[in-house]
Amino acid sequence: MKSVGIISEYNPFHNGHLYHAQQSKLQSQADVSIALMSGNFVMRGEPALFNKFIRTQMALSAVDLVVELPTIASLSSGDYFGEMAIKLADYLDVNTISFGSEHGNINALKEAAKQVLDLENSDAFKSKLKEGKSYPRIINELIQHQSTNDILQSPNNILSIGYLKGIQQFAPQIEAITIYRDTAQHRDQKIQHQQFASGSSIRQSIIHHHSDWENVVPEAIKSLYHSHFTTVEHAFPYIKHQLLTQRISTLKTIYTMSEGLENRLISMIKDAHSFKDLLTKVKTKRYTYTHIQRVLMNVLLNIQQCDIKHDISAARILGMNENGRAYLKYLKRHFPERHFITNINQSSSAYFSNEIKATHIYNLMSQQFDDDFNTPVIKI
Amino acid sequence: MKSVGIISEYNPFHNGHLYHAQQSKLQSQADVSIALMSGNFVMRGEPALFNKFIRTQMALSAVDLVVELPTIASLSSGDYFGEMAIKLADYLDVNTISFGSEHGNINALKEAAKQVLDLENSDAFKSKLKEGKSYPRIINELIQHQSTNDILQSPNNILSIGYLKGIQQFAPQIEAITIYRDTAQHRDQKIQHQQFASGSSIRQSIIHHHSDWENVVPEAIKSLYHSHFTTVEHAFPYIKHQLLTQRISTLKTIYTMSEGLENRLISMIKDAHSFKDLLTKVKTKRYTYTHIQRVLMNVLLNIQQCDIKHDISAARILGMNENGRAYLKYLKRHFPERHFITNINQSSSAYFSNEIKATHIYNLMSQQFDDDFNTPVIKI
Repeated sequence: MKSVGIISEYNPFHNGHLYHAQQSKLQSQADVSIALMSGNFVMRGEPALFNKFIRTQMALSAVDLVVELPTIASLSSGDYFGEMAIKLADYLDVNTISFGSEHGNINALKEAAKQVLDLENSDAFKSKLKEGKSYPRIINELIQHQSTNDILQSPNNILSIGYLKGIQQFAPQIEAITIYRDTAQHRDQKIQHQQFASGSSIRQSIIHHHSDWENVVPEAIKSLYHSHFTTVEHAFPYIKHQLLTQRISTLKTIYTMSEGLENRLISMIKDAHSFKDLLTKVKTKRYTYTHIQRVLMNVLLNIQQCDIKHDISAARILGMNENGRAYLKYLKRHFPERHFITNINQSSSAYFSNEIKATHIYNLMSQQFDDDFNTPVIKI
Repeated sequence: MKSVGIISEYNPFHNGHLYHAQQSKLQSQADVSIALMSGNFVMRGEPALFNKFIRTQMALSAVDLVVELPTIASLSSGDYFGEMAIKLADYLDVNTISFGSEHGNINALKEAAKQVLDLENSDAFKSKLKEGKSYPRIINELIQHQSTNDILQSPNNILSIGYLKGIQQFAPQIEAITIYRDTAQHRDQKIQHQQFASGSSIRQSIIHHHSDWENVVPEAIKSLYHSHFTTVEHAFPYIKHQLLTQRISTLKTIYTMSEGLENRLISMIKDAHSFKDLLTKVKTKRYTYTHIQRVLMNVLLNIQQCDIKHDISAARILGMNENGRAYLKYLKRHFPERHFITNINQSSSAYFSNEIKATHIYNLMSQQFDDDFNTPVIKI
């Protein structure tokens, strides 16, 4: 069976995602589409607006199989996120990866990825890194092609480069296709288009109990968007508690914590009265909002440097339709030594300890009760 | 100036405490009375019902000076609590310590304390300890006087023994007096007496918004009992978060954590929906409720074995009346090298880091805002 993998967060799912999924299957001519989806926490450093079980149901309106990305990858920047997503795709025997990009030309993106990868392995890069220069600055100084530099200015292009680097390094047999993504639309904070809108604008609409999100999500699954939602503010009291009680030596070992940021967080937390307030207080030129948010989610989940793994030892299936189930049978037959887990129990839980922990924390802070043990794989 | 020290928690202050304070000053013939009072967390392993600033105001209706006991001592069992209370009293040049007891005869209590202390230093005791026997069991096996064994059956007698052992070891110049305390009354869960009631029964009355507590607290400070109150249930979500996220190796180092209790807590926390529910699930013959509660408060505050100190390096004055202020002047004149701190600022904060942390956590979980920095010493 020919398969296409879509690296996704669906936070929440919208018409743009539906279009992407349809185009991906069409252009790749795949028999089955697989969403490799972030669980309860997403890459922008937030709890997902809706929990992973609800987002799985949303995703199944467009794809055949939903598989959970490792939580640590979901709370990482592009490179590690890309590496783990590609390794998971490879574990699932995915033939083609399809992603959105502002550029839209896969050959140009591939060429840019190759240049960045070569650069990272060069002596010039390594010596500049030793000088203490930041990664983006070095890339900017060393990349010789203006076209590549242009590509690196857009967020989805950068993600694409991460995936393509992952493919080149860890699974060169995987093909890649890209679907053009409108930049302006992606950055919108308000819903302006009749049919398509950015994830940000949809989240804002839902959080503020407006109704304009209704036009930009698939009609058939509209009721799911009325589910209980969770924001960074639900996480704030727990993050404050952690920052007030943890030793500085422990905070230093938190995954993605930059040198010295722990001191800044400790000094700002005492008077911070909300997540947004803390972000405003901590922000400097040195740290992006996304970076600070990711660090805070890693504080919330107590994810430490030593938790980082580079292998996929099992895949968690969150949901499937008939077609997805057929593919899962195919996988189990062809890869009997691999672990494709549809239901978490005592013996399978060891593979997903971070995901189980993340769900417990997600539920604690948002007063929800669907966890990895009591929620069976979603079948439609 | 002759001074009497009262080791107290005032959780909350009631007519029994008023009577004790009056009798203490009378019987000791002291010029000044000093409450050595637990801060925002108390020995039974709970947040104090009212915060330490409110309880200071309550205490000043009966005593002249209120000084905060170290938080770690307040979350410890009798021996370390007694040691630190006596050392703090010594630091404050207290002449007489006055405590309530079910026995009421200071000489019998002193004799019992001496026997227990001798026993603890004996070879027989040490070898039985090596055999793995519990402290109460060894004492029970080795104490030869039935009268001492009888004394050790009542909670306030045991506390008294702790103070008297502290005096014998660390400040033998301090005198001790005891005021008789009615046992039955102390154990009451409901308010039954017209004028006196147990702390437990008063807390229950306040928590359930009854009004029978009004008869058993001093008329002049009644309005203070309508303040915002805090219970273990306010602490529960944060304790759950800690138990879900902390590594087992970290939980093992939590102060007062008994061997293996961390495993039991971790396995029970996932399905626990309240503090009371968690206690019921975790309780076995091996652990008393108070022990489990204290462990949970140490988890909440992330107090570790290595935080334990055995010296008093400063005293925090929470409140005073005119008489207390005169005594403070006397102390500053006679002990210029000691630190008597009325207001916390950057330089004095280092002495009280645990107390400041405890207040931040107390405020976070109960949504209060009076902290150690913004609340000046209380003067009446």
